[in-house]
This record gives sequence, C-alpha cells and structure tokens, in this order.
Amino acid sequence: MLKGSARAHTNIALIKYWGKANEDLIIPMNNSLSLTLDAFYTETTVTFSEELTTDIFYLDDTLQDEKGTKKISRFLDLVRKKAACPLFAEVNSYNHVPTAAGLASSSSGLAALAAACNQALQLDLSDRDLSRLARRGSGSACRSIFPGFVEWQKGNSDETSFAEVVPSSGWENELAMLFILINDQEKDISSRDGMRKTVETSAFYDGWLQTTTQDLASAKIAIHAQDFEKLGTVTENNALKMHGTTLAAVPPFTYWSPDSLKAMNAVRKIRAAGLPCYFTMDAGPNVKVLCQRKDVAQLKEKLTHYFADEQLITAFSGPGITYL
Amino acid sequence: MLKGSARAHTNIALIKYWGKANEDLIIPMNNSLSLTLDAFYTETTVTFSEELTTDIFYLDDTLQDEKGTKKISRFLDLVRKKAACPLFAEVNSYNHVPTAAGLASSSSGLAALAAACNQALQLDLSDRDLSRLARRGSGSACRSIFPGFVEWQKGNSDETSFAEVVPSSGWENELAMLFILINDQEKDISSRDGMRKTVETSAFYDGWLQTTTQDLASAKIAIHAQDFEKLGTVTENNALKMHGTTLAAVPPFTYWSPDSLKAMNAVRKIRAAGLPCYFTMDAGPNVKVLCQRKDVAQLKEKLTHYFADEQLITAFSGPGITYL
Repeated sequence: MLKGSARAHTNIALIKYWGKANEDLIIPMNNSLSLTLDAFYTETTVTFSEELTTDIFYLDDTLQDEKGTKKISRFLDLVRKKAACPLFAEVNSYNHVPTAAGLASSSSGLAALAAACNQALQLDLSDRDLSRLARRGSGSACRSIFPGFVEWQKGNSDETSFAEVVPSSGWENELAMLFILINDQEKDISSRDGMRKTVETSAFYDGWLQTTTQDLASAKIAIHAQDFEKLGTVTENNALKMHGTTLAAVPPFTYWSPDSLKAMNAVRKIRAAGLPCYFTMDAGPNVKVLCQRKDVAQLKEKLTHYFADEQLITAFSGPGITYL
Repeated sequence: MLKGSARAHTNIALIKYWGKANEDLIIPMNNSLSLTLDAFYTETTVTFSEELTTDIFYLDDTLQDEKGTKKISRFLDLVRKKAACPLFAEVNSYNHVPTAAGLASSSSGLAALAAACNQALQLDLSDRDLSRLARRGSGSACRSIFPGFVEWQKGNSDETSFAEVVPSSGWENELAMLFILINDQEKDISSRDGMRKTVETSAFYDGWLQTTTQDLASAKIAIHAQDFEKLGTVTENNALKMHGTTLAAVPPFTYWSPDSLKAMNAVRKIRAAGLPCYFTMDAGPNVKVLCQRKDVAQLKEKLTHYFADEQLITAFSGPGITYL
C-alpha cells in the first residue's frame, strides 16, 4: 500500500490565465501571476493499492460517480506512467471552503492531489517538477504549489511551463483578499470551456494577449516597489479586460451576474471615498477584493452596507504545499 | 424673421456607431445601421432674427444656460456659414419622451434642428445633404433624417459621410422595440467621451473594427431575407461587443448597471423559452429589446415579471423628418 497526504491552498490570479496554447499539455497563452490564500484549501490523501480494480474518488466523504472521477483518473494515469506504477488508487479529498458558493477551486484540488501522489509513490519531485505535474491536472494548480506571489511561466513545452515564487520581501503578508460570494441562478460555463471559446472565436483575444504581457510586467514592478495602488489598478484592469474578451466570443457570454456589478460598483465607491481596494473576478460571479491587511476590517464593514455578512470571507496570503 | 419647424424621431443602432475617424467633421470609424422609432421624437422651431444679439435655446420651455446652448450655437454657426446668414437665432425644442430616464437622445434633437434650419433659411437641402448637415451636430442624428432601417455610410469626407435608407420592403413595420428604463445612480460617461477614450486606449478597438463590417453585412442580409433571428442575433452580439471594448479602455469603464444585466438575463430567458427577442444597449444603462410586432404584448407581459410596468415603453418603426 502506497499512501500520501498533502494540503494545497487556492490561489487567485491578479494577472489572469486565459487561454491555452496546448490543450493537452495545458501550456497557457500568457504568463499569469497569483496570490496563494490561506482561507481556502484542499486536503487530499491518495492510496495506491493492489486490491483496487478501479480508481475511487471521495470528495468531502461522498463517493463520486464515473463522470466526477474521470478528471482524477486521467491525472492518476499521468502519475502512474511517470512512476511506472500499475496500481489503481483511492483518493480522499476535503475542500475546506466556508460555503459551497463556487469556491471549490480546481487549483487547490489538483495541487493537493499531485503532492499526495508525489509522496505516495516517492517521486521525490522538486517543487518546480511538482508544479509541472500539477499543471497537467489543472492549469492554475501549478501556482498553488508555492506561497504568496507566484508567476506561472508559460514556457513552450511540458518541461518549460511551471510556476515559481515572485520575490516580494514578504510584502504579501501586508495584503488581504476579501471574497464577496454571489449566488447566481445562471448556468455556468466552466473556465476551461470559456477560455477555449474565447481563444477560438473572440475578436478581442489578440488585444488581450498583446497587453497582458505589459500588465504582468507592471504587476511585478508594483510588487517589487510594494506599490499597492499600482498593483491594485493593474489587477482590476486585467480582470475587466479578461471579462471583456468573452463579450466578443461567438456566441458571446459573460460570467457576470447583476450582483457582480453591484459589488464592482461598491468597490469603486469605497475606493473613491479613500480606502484603497481593487476587485478581480474569475470564471464565475464572485467578486474578490484586494486590499491592504490594515484596511480589511474597515473594508468588510463598508461592504456590509451592500452585502450580507455571510457573503463576505476574508483571506490572507497562504502557504504552498504542505505534506501531512 | 426667418422661421422653420420640424420633427425628428430617435433612432437606435442595431449595428453601433462607436468611434470617430475625424472628431471635427464627425466621420465615423465604421458604418452603422439603425431603426428609426415612433415613440420618441423632438419638435424644434428655429427663428433667425435681426433683433437677437445672441443665440437663445429653450428646451422643454426652459431657457438653457451658456453651457447648454454651446452645442446648439456651434451647430448654428455651421448653418449660418452655409447660408451666408449673419443672424442669431432662437431655438425652441420639445423632447417627446415618456420619461426623463436618459432617453432624450441627441439624435432626434440635432436632426430636428438641422431640418428646422433648412426650412428657416430656405437651404432646400436634399435628404442626403440634410443628413450630412445633421451629422455635424451629432453623429447619429444623420440617421434620424430617414424612416425605418437606415445605414450611415461612413465615407471619408464631409461630402461622403451620410445616411440612407436600407431597402426592406416595409419589413420594419413588422418589428418593435421595447425599452427597459433603468435608473442608475452612477455618473455618466457621455457617448462622445466613451467612444473617444475607447478609440484612443482600448486594446479591443481593432477587434471591434475588424468584425463590425461583417456584422453590418450580416444585418443587411438578414433585413433582405426578413430573417428576424439572424437580425436579432447580430444586433445583440454587436452590442455586447461594443460594450466589451470599454472594458479594455485605460482606465476601463462600463455603461452597465446591475439592472442592465438583470434585463439582459431576462431577455435571454424569455428567448430560451421560445419568444424571439434580442437586446441592445447604448451609452447608458437602459436596455432595448428588439422583437416582432406580433409578439410585443406577450414580451411586455413577460418582462413585467422582472420590471415595473412604468419602466417598459413600446416603440415601433418611425418616420423620417417631418416639416411642421
């Protein structure tokens, strides 16, 4: 019996990953930059065993059906090939998220699974190689291997596409991210489908790619200079630009719900009144607000004028992979 | 005393005018296509008189201050030059719009003023030349000279930039447009400022221009074939694309309010349930829904599940310039 356990935290991109250059290897079209967060994480145990005749996947103690297990099995196939191990595995994952409101990110899930496999099969991967492996499971998972500010170097091959820490002298510990959870009745378009449709059909995709390199450079300069306003501005602008690309897809689509706009307007108002804060959004209606740690209580109080207390979750900079 | 009176109706673009190639002459970057509507119009009387020592502008019986009169005076200067007439004028305009909710469009206002001047100074302009003149006052006003479906040929000079009717065998009379009036507390960015900022700074503007020519061709094919679904689809997609361009402007901005998204979602749901209807939006939060005349009562009833009755205004195809 070969067993491994690991914890990985969710990361939220400040400069977004939006589009694959290689769908199979999950090589992205552009570099992205994220902040790993403490509030949301996945703990996963994997056990490879001769007694199993198929892969089994429990998520939060619930046995997943064939469809829910497929992505996990495909990832385990990669690991089995790498380790020359023929055994099936049982995977037990626990998503530690305050609610079920669409925050169970695949980034922490696949990062934790990759690390658990690394331990179980004694692959002894470096963090960089673990990042490459996690990337194959879910692109953004490669960033969750590392703490704090992380850049995903797009590379141009399986070898050269991995994440790494962005040196920041610990500045990430002075920041916070406040999540505004927005319930939405609309049918979701997955991140994977959304970016594929955008790359294939959006007249805005070239404009996105041409300017995102500059956005990433600006973000890194801001991190180096510990310039919060500059980092916040490029974060918000990059997110709006990503969401703009979907409006020129054929057919067009949006991840925004009415309350997403309400949240964006609230952030703009609070900022205009003097509290520095900037929003970002991913492939869903939730809005995430980047602020300075010293302002987080005040920001939360101001946001309760717009949203219920239970819709607001505070997160700080989080650690990379932990073996359990 | 030289006096003229005319009525002009508002038009709503199905393929949007969004960006000027020449700010002074108001030559647009792309052709646009609109529907002139019966429900909203402006009646304007202009009187050139030796007794006046300045231009005077009354809007809905209220004397406008210097700032409110400036645009009118600038337009009258063009007319005075054309007619070799040195006289100041008094302008009386009445906007016939059901509410003050941001529907007092400059398109009907400047078209009515151009026609009133044409009559007052006996310029005897052809419709095409009147369209060219109205264009100088407000770009979209050039389309309000004509009834039904109208295309603004962008041209490349004052001579060659004008609107003209798109032949449609009267199909426009089988269509309707339902306005959803949305009150918004946000500060407005004028259409003029919004398009200028977008042309100058948006990474998406090239993508907009490259695909809008095709959108316009599709719209004309749909009109020729009287294919409502095709016309509606390209109308909605073109509007979303226009609004996507603003998200990549520097700084980014949006005309959408939370209720705009609520309206868009409602239209999508009603359409998915079998009633063909498609939305468009301009430089403000209101949402306009294109439907077939036979469906308008049913559409309005369905929309009352989302919006108050007084927020909904029905419009049909309207006439071009009428001299009074």
